[in-house]
Amino acid sequence: MKPNFSLRLRVFNLNCWDIPYVSKHRADRIERLGDFLNTENFDLALLEEVWSEQDFQYLRQKLAVIYPAAHYFKSGIIGSGLCVFSKHPIQEICQHIYTLNGYPYMIHHGDWFCGKAVGLLVLHLSGVVLNAYVTHLHAEYNRQKDIYLTHRVAQAWELAQFIHHTSKKADVVLLCGDLNMHPGDLGCCLLKEYTGLHDAYLKTQDFNGPEEGYTMIKQNCYVSQQDLGPFPFGIRIDYVLYKAVSGFYISCKTLKTTTGHHPHNDTPLSDHEALMATLCVRHGPPEQDPSPPHGPAETSSLIRVLREAWMELGLGIARARWWTAFASYVTGLGLLFLVLLCVLATGEGAREVAILLWSPSVGLVLGAGAVSLFHMQEAKSLGRVQAELQHVLGKAKEAQDCTQSLS
Amino acid sequence: MKPNFSLRLRVFNLNCWDIPYVSKHRADRIERLGDFLNTENFDLALLEEVWSEQDFQYLRQKLAVIYPAAHYFKSGIIGSGLCVFSKHPIQEICQHIYTLNGYPYMIHHGDWFCGKAVGLLVLHLSGVVLNAYVTHLHAEYNRQKDIYLTHRVAQAWELAQFIHHTSKKADVVLLCGDLNMHPGDLGCCLLKEYTGLHDAYLKTQDFNGPEEGYTMIKQNCYVSQQDLGPFPFGIRIDYVLYKAVSGFYISCKTLKTTTGHHPHNDTPLSDHEALMATLCVRHGPPEQDPSPPHGPAETSSLIRVLREAWMELGLGIARARWWTAFASYVTGLGLLFLVLLCVLATGEGAREVAILLWSPSVGLVLGAGAVSLFHMQEAKSLGRVQAELQHVLGKAKEAQDCTQSLS
Repeated sequence: MKPNFSLRLRVFNLNCWDIPYVSKHRADRIERLGDFLNTENFDLALLEEVWSEQDFQYLRQKLAVIYPAAHYFKSGIIGSGLCVFSKHPIQEICQHIYTLNGYPYMIHHGDWFCGKAVGLLVLHLSGVVLNAYVTHLHAEYNRQKDIYLTHRVAQAWELAQFIHHTSKKADVVLLCGDLNMHPGDLGCCLLKEYTGLHDAYLKTQDFNGPEEGYTMIKQNCYVSQQDLGPFPFGIRIDYVLYKAVSGFYISCKTLKTTTGHHPHNDTPLSDHEALMATLCVRHGPPEQDPSPPHGPAETSSLIRVLREAWMELGLGIARARWWTAFASYVTGLGLLFLVLLCVLATGEGAREVAILLWSPSVGLVLGAGAVSLFHMQEAKSLGRVQAELQHVLGKAKEAQDCTQSLS
Repeated sequence: MKPNFSLRLRVFNLNCWDIPYVSKHRADRIERLGDFLNTENFDLALLEEVWSEQDFQYLRQKLAVIYPAAHYFKSGIIGSGLCVFSKHPIQEICQHIYTLNGYPYMIHHGDWFCGKAVGLLVLHLSGVVLNAYVTHLHAEYNRQKDIYLTHRVAQAWELAQFIHHTSKKADVVLLCGDLNMHPGDLGCCLLKEYTGLHDAYLKTQDFNGPEEGYTMIKQNCYVSQQDLGPFPFGIRIDYVLYKAVSGFYISCKTLKTTTGHHPHNDTPLSDHEALMATLCVRHGPPEQDPSPPHGPAETSSLIRVLREAWMELGLGIARARWWTAFASYVTGLGLLFLVLLCVLATGEGAREVAILLWSPSVGLVLGAGAVSLFHMQEAKSLGRVQAELQHVLGKAKEAQDCTQSLS
């Protein structure tokens, strides 16, 4: 590799809102997305919410010349919705499905059925090992009373752990996706603090797009005021994050975000805005790196965010245990009621009523039993994340103490 | 690090058969296990089937002086059963829960409820980065008609992928656990071929234990003839596997396996035998490594095993799709039957029969619906593994073609 080596990387990210039978103008939007990607000739296009594998196959065929490598990350009952199109050969593929992803009985929200995941692609570009990750975390339906907050924090931690452990030999790490978190949200801070990833919007030298880098805006005709909640102008929940690891330096030359319209005409490609980043990778010995990953200041803010996440998980565990206990009591009472119904059914007086009540009671017992088992598993999974956080917290404190005693 | 550097690593592995209310002499065996580990002073003790967190806490307390670092890998509803005790500080912890792990309706087998997983510990020993993995795969209940074979192959692939992607910067990789696979089984070959891990039993200079390295033997009073199936003398399903990566060389000096008795008296510690390995790590430039990971011969045997696994997964996908279709038909028929029962209940003739049949019919519809969704998810997960295998197969063939055209 030459000393004045430089690699230019053009990346596209979009939450496609491609939900069969639900999303408006689906076929038309997917067709125009294909045309746009072919025209723009990106290095990498990372897509979320492609919940129709037929649409992925359609895109694969349409993009085959410009993007010969493609992959769909299968997961859950419906699919993760994640897919990727690459101009360069994909060397390796891997994925991690989040352990916690909402509740199966919240059918109207549907996240549980998708098997939300993070996908990893390893690419070798002019001798640079690039680990590109694409993800989509659990949606936020009600910011004021967010029952999925703990799950999203746990997902952010699993994402951070997956990136940390799988990117140790990568030169450049890139994460794109719909995190369903605002920039200052706990999960977002945890992810950035632990992995050392930089936010393209905050770091770019040239941003072109809606104010505050919003990726869901009121100008988009598919976005309702309800989607934006208490943020009438917009929210930023889609990200391009990156870092360079060993002896490389990465910067974001330009970041362009669509502004509620298709870049070439008036109808938007999705209810989210597309992110288009131009990244530049060049040689930079570690001492030239302007932001060392874990100096004393970073360690102390890492400790703060780890503590906060640890506490949030503690609350989640308490809630999960409460639901486990409640559902277990209901199961027990339901069983007692079934015994009572059996006794009544043998007599003559209330026989018909007993038989009529039998069916909903059996349903109640089975349903409450399943809910109890589900929350037992939830508590176990949250406990696992909390134990991992506790361990990292201990190590971070050790490092802090060590630095303080040296200075 | 000195040029004549050498690191001695003493490792203990045991499937503890610690199942509350089921396993015989549980408390006594766990107590004696603690005593034994304290006496022997291993570097690392990796345990499976510790399905009581109280027992883990008891061991943690008992072993605190000799093994100050310990971790329990929480998972599923019951727990993964995996835990570890280390004489050296644990730098990092991570775990991966297998996507496929049997069927929830096979309650008597129980594997689904455990959330079988692989746990990872990163240790820094005299400058050597050691990635130690502990795992337990789905049990084999009937070798002649093994309905879990595809799931175990999928688990072996996920395990291989997890090791491959998380150990890229490790100097030494160690995997211990109960793989529930015989040495020549498809999943075992896939794991070893893809990761390049060596089997301590086959590589050791000094083996001391039952013939063929069996880890479940007829001499063990807790093992029934039924457990051994068509192998009356024993089976080898517990392993110590290892490899050195960059510039290091690892060898197994001794491997000792218990012989159906506690090493210090007559009652065994578990229904499985314990494995005790002494590994030696020293500097060895790559060219001195006697077994390069992926030469032409290795590539062709990797291709063979990848193909075989791909086909097995194909069969699994067909089965999962059949069950999805069957359960969907049953759900549909059940719904029709419910409509019929509603009609009958409005009349006088068969009213009581209709009301009596209502309850089991609702159960049938819900049960069949759940089974259908489960197998849909199973097909998706198997499809994901098959796609990953397909990708690796393509890359391996490319490498083979490249080697052939060069020679």
